[in-house]
Amino acid sequence: MFALAESDPELSKDDASLIEDRLRTALLKAQYARLKQQNCALLIVIAGIDGAGKGATVAMLNEWMDARHIRTLAFGPPAPDEHGRPWLWRYWQQLPAKGKTGIVFGSWYRPLLKEAARKKPRQKRILALSRVIRDFENTLAQNGVQVVKLWYHLSQRAQVQRTEKLLSDPDTAWRVKPEDLKVKKKFPRLRDAGALAITLTHETHAPWVVIPAADTQMREISTGQVVLAALRKRRIAPAQPLVQASEAIMAPPAPSLADLDYDAKLEDDEYDTLLPDWQGRLARLVRHEKFAQTPVVLVFEGQDAAGKGGTIRRITHALDPRQFRAIPISAPTKDELAHPYLWRFWRDLPIPGHISIFDRSWYGRVLVERVEKYASETEWQRAYDEINQFESQLLDSGTVVLKFWLAVSKEEQLKRFHEREASPFKSFKITPEDWRNRKQWDAYIKATNDMFQHTSTQACPWHMVSANDKRHARVAVLRHVVRALEDALGLD
Amino acid sequence: MFALAESDPELSKDDASLIEDRLRTALLKAQYARLKQQNCALLIVIAGIDGAGKGATVAMLNEWMDARHIRTLAFGPPAPDEHGRPWLWRYWQQLPAKGKTGIVFGSWYRPLLKEAARKKPRQKRILALSRVIRDFENTLAQNGVQVVKLWYHLSQRAQVQRTEKLLSDPDTAWRVKPEDLKVKKKFPRLRDAGALAITLTHETHAPWVVIPAADTQMREISTGQVVLAALRKRRIAPAQPLVQASEAIMAPPAPSLADLDYDAKLEDDEYDTLLPDWQGRLARLVRHEKFAQTPVVLVFEGQDAAGKGGTIRRITHALDPRQFRAIPISAPTKDELAHPYLWRFWRDLPIPGHISIFDRSWYGRVLVERVEKYASETEWQRAYDEINQFESQLLDSGTVVLKFWLAVSKEEQLKRFHEREASPFKSFKITPEDWRNRKQWDAYIKATNDMFQHTSTQACPWHMVSANDKRHARVAVLRHVVRALEDALGLD
Repeated sequence: MFALAESDPELSKDDASLIEDRLRTALLKAQYARLKQQNCALLIVIAGIDGAGKGATVAMLNEWMDARHIRTLAFGPPAPDEHGRPWLWRYWQQLPAKGKTGIVFGSWYRPLLKEAARKKPRQKRILALSRVIRDFENTLAQNGVQVVKLWYHLSQRAQVQRTEKLLSDPDTAWRVKPEDLKVKKKFPRLRDAGALAITLTHETHAPWVVIPAADTQMREISTGQVVLAALRKRRIAPAQPLVQASEAIMAPPAPSLADLDYDAKLEDDEYDTLLPDWQGRLARLVRHEKFAQTPVVLVFEGQDAAGKGGTIRRITHALDPRQFRAIPISAPTKDELAHPYLWRFWRDLPIPGHISIFDRSWYGRVLVERVEKYASETEWQRAYDEINQFESQLLDSGTVVLKFWLAVSKEEQLKRFHEREASPFKSFKITPEDWRNRKQWDAYIKATNDMFQHTSTQACPWHMVSANDKRHARVAVLRHVVRALEDALGLD
Repeated sequence: MFALAESDPELSKDDASLIEDRLRTALLKAQYARLKQQNCALLIVIAGIDGAGKGATVAMLNEWMDARHIRTLAFGPPAPDEHGRPWLWRYWQQLPAKGKTGIVFGSWYRPLLKEAARKKPRQKRILALSRVIRDFENTLAQNGVQVVKLWYHLSQRAQVQRTEKLLSDPDTAWRVKPEDLKVKKKFPRLRDAGALAITLTHETHAPWVVIPAADTQMREISTGQVVLAALRKRRIAPAQPLVQASEAIMAPPAPSLADLDYDAKLEDDEYDTLLPDWQGRLARLVRHEKFAQTPVVLVFEGQDAAGKGGTIRRITHALDPRQFRAIPISAPTKDELAHPYLWRFWRDLPIPGHISIFDRSWYGRVLVERVEKYASETEWQRAYDEINQFESQLLDSGTVVLKFWLAVSKEEQLKRFHEREASPFKSFKITPEDWRNRKQWDAYIKATNDMFQHTSTQACPWHMVSANDKRHARVAVLRHVVRALEDALGLD
């Protein structure tokens, strides 16, 4: 894999300068063409052996291209605000919009490379990390973010020479980092780690290219040519079959709306006792010291007028306003449309001790976007897996995720629509769109049951709650939240 | 000030329900009218004595209005990522866009109230805090963010009764916070602190209203009425004369472009020695442990083709890509236009150990926006003070701020324009806009000199650098950055 790169090929300055001018012009042209088309973003991952000029490459790309439309995404050790978030969170935050280019330095390969370079690498962790990376890059590729990965490489001999030359001059000695000095001893291990990572994650839609890095001209021209080819390749990769699709979806049997008992109800006096009782229990829980370590995500979906807002308010009533955010999800903005559809949800994830309450959610992809045909069948079909992966990354990071479906019968919905229309301060809640959705009632039922089928996993099941009686629904949800939190905090 | 509120006035449930329906309808109507007009945002500050139902008010407003267009901005103690940032940073991050409403809980009054409630309040700090608050609210009011501040109040007797009642029932006891128990003893001090804060910060464009809070109906209806009045008041406050305008602008004598020596230059061999020398010094500096405590802001302004990009790259060459961000500033996006013009710059401030390099900056307000008349004269005149306040808050938080003006002569600019046009990979840098700007040369010179006059302060002076010779400019800027950092870190 590294035979060519380790022969340390060279390019003379004269030859390079002949190519460079044309290459830079072509790069700029390709960059502008992309900006104009805006059909996908480009992420250039910079990785490689230490001391192979990765930093210099970032500077070069910024100089050769129009730096105003490039963003360098350089990541070091996790920042304090990343604690308790899935490890891919930082990369989701910084995804470039369609048309733009991002150069990633300190990428999502770092944990995998670190593990693979250990004296005794843990195979299980290597496989798990590379699986998450492949899922991530696949989701990106399918959602308008092209990924190209460059591995900078040189021979051990060239590496040592370079370090010695830099160290010999006080003006350049600072360029040698402590890691560079250690690399000599570790060279074979680092090389094998790179080879392993490349083998496990080289995909048509996110390919690796090895760049010979010993000679500056060779490194620069090769980089420019690879980036040019990537910029010109505008077609988005075709959908990849997902190998692990069935893995997450095992027991319990998915709920179905047909099984629901719509008659469940609570009398006034029961409600007046139970509601403050569960609210008090929730209030004490979220003030418990263990809670400060736990991020919580609550997802509310359901038919229009099922009472999601009222149920959410009964929960937030028990919370300190500083520890939750209620996030109403409506049609995506222009900026959100320029990113993968999961992007906006990644931006609203809670830190430990906080609760993000989604009033509608990422499930819109397989509900309204499916029924209204905003998403193609390929897109919403694929979304089941993307959503399962997203939630599984949340769970892995220690987040508690609870998903509720509030269900009303068709008759009850009609009654509520009429009530809302009659009330001067509730009429805003009922729009022509609600009536249009109602006409599609059966299509939504089918989409909902399919969603349960594909996304009610063992680790993150759906909770279906009858909301024909609002009091029943509120207490049922509260009770569920309390019990799940007690369970998660080990307090039951 | 609190006489009425401390008489604990009541409103019967019957009277309240008569008013409530009409009030809620009117609130929704006013909210939608604002959303449609989009000419200013509304910030509702919720403050008051402990145990006066502030949390319940937030819930009520979310229920009475359309919660999808309200955002509750609840702030606790500073989060880890706020360390090293000006204390107002968190509020700038969360400003609602024009048309939207934000409810602020844990507002910028907290430090002032805390100080004023001490046994021995420090007068100097109280005055300093209230000055910063008045400047902040003035900047908001002048830039499309209306502020209304509600103080929830009740008598000491009512406060004690409320706490006792809540404590007597296990379902409500959790509502009593530890602070609420202490309030009994501290009531007079907290009340006086509130009165002082209100007196110091009550302004036509950001008024305080005291809400009687002992009785739930009275509290809810009063709140609704005040918010309604605020929503209906669509006109933005007229410009306020700024009392402290001249304070920050004292010595040193402001630079003027007429004084510049455009002949300063470096020979090739001097440059080849000096550049790596200063880059090495910078590289060692930013890797020093003291640097990890320091946020740095570098501002680059100058005529078109003065070589800002090349100078910035000579600096970043010495930096680790993970510790800086180069931020090219161009025309504001739609989202940015919906916020005060300083908002986008607040979003790009560095954390300690990081450098934000602005390629053009907030000074656009008094340069291009003035010359091209994108900003009215009132707006750009006012901007000098707003900018001085912004920079002084940065300095107060420990940020090192350096401002460079790269100057080229009119002849040199023409020469560079022609060179750029002739180069296939530099021609993208020259646009019809550059030629248009060039025709306005004299207007820009005037705007620049005025800018120096008003914003070159003792604490944050402008550094004017001749850039007719690029090598001279690069080394001069590098030297300046290094010396300023050595000075700030106490390393010279």
